[in-house]
Amino acid sequence: MKLLEDYILEKGTVLEGDVLKVDAFLNHQIDPKLMREIGGEFAEHFKGLGITKIVTIESSGIAPAVFAGLYLDVPVIFARKKKSVTLKDHLYTAEVYSYTKKETSSISISESFLTSEDKLLIIDDFLANGQAALGLIEIAKSAKATVSGIGIVIEKSFQKGRQLLDETGIQVVSLARIASLENQRIHFLDEEGHHVK
Amino acid sequence: MKLLEDYILEKGTVLEGDVLKVDAFLNHQIDPKLMREIGGEFAEHFKGLGITKIVTIESSGIAPAVFAGLYLDVPVIFARKKKSVTLKDHLYTAEVYSYTKKETSSISISESFLTSEDKLLIIDDFLANGQAALGLIEIAKSAKATVSGIGIVIEKSFQKGRQLLDETGIQVVSLARIASLENQRIHFLDEEGHHVK
Repeated sequence: MKLLEDYILEKGTVLEGDVLKVDAFLNHQIDPKLMREIGGEFAEHFKGLGITKIVTIESSGIAPAVFAGLYLDVPVIFARKKKSVTLKDHLYTAEVYSYTKKETSSISISESFLTSEDKLLIIDDFLANGQAALGLIEIAKSAKATVSGIGIVIEKSFQKGRQLLDETGIQVVSLARIASLENQRIHFLDEEGHHVK
Repeated sequence: MKLLEDYILEKGTVLEGDVLKVDAFLNHQIDPKLMREIGGEFAEHFKGLGITKIVTIESSGIAPAVFAGLYLDVPVIFARKKKSVTLKDHLYTAEVYSYTKKETSSISISESFLTSEDKLLIIDDFLANGQAALGLIEIAKSAKATVSGIGIVIEKSFQKGRQLLDETGIQVVSLARIASLENQRIHFLDEEGHHVK
């Protein structure tokens, strides 16, 4: 998605350890118009699949997921990383390991909102090692729901997440695919996975 | 806001300890069309004030804030409850006490995204004791930014938050004002603070 790649090049910064910082429009400050375009792009990709609900993880997945939900006319559920006062029982839970933070946390969705009839679209802001998306797939399995698609805003294609998700057979769409962040420079792959000059 | 009150009556449930559970459309599952309407309503109320940025707190404030940001054509910043890999230095931070959880947590916004020129609109999902909004006001003060308005989705008017915010002199708009949750029944106030039969 050209617009998103332009944002990444203009406003993103590369930190040590292959960390791409996009706090200026996605992970801390949010650009609402960009989110609307991203949501529309996801809706366009997944509109034929009979999606009944979108699932994401708090917090940075919420904005793109809500616009995709608006366009697909389905509810959005965000998995919670922490149990809350109103959300502590009757939960589907999965353990998610973060390679960046080097810690395992659990994510939860209330049993009330997922059924075996559901066709889910998973949306997340980043795909690196794939653990968050795999956690959501595990939750979907617990609910006997179908995962019909996975939409990622920014994929770090040089890490193993994309391959792990492709191996599930679920359709994956990443709106920006990053080939490399070496030497603090951002190189993209195109949608088919070819290097972009 | 009639539509929101209808959602609360139809899909909300009252738990012990005056907790209103609206996990079906705001705090866990999100209704994107309702969020769009809520964002539009906030934009309508605050459009004349020259708002430059919206600030909210992760996670449930994000969806209504992003639509308000879309309509007001300004960026949205969500304060983080936890420091992240890309957000740990150069932060404005405030301590927020939660009466529900009986714990103090800190919320942070990067110094990069707030300036003394900013006119901020604070948006949050709930107003009860006002500690979250007061924390955001404190962060705004640290940045020497002006808080021009506060938009709340659901206000529990029988708790002290509304009064504390009114005492700051900042304009507060709550889209649903709850007079009482006694005996598991939801009673609303109208916008002027009168009881609704």
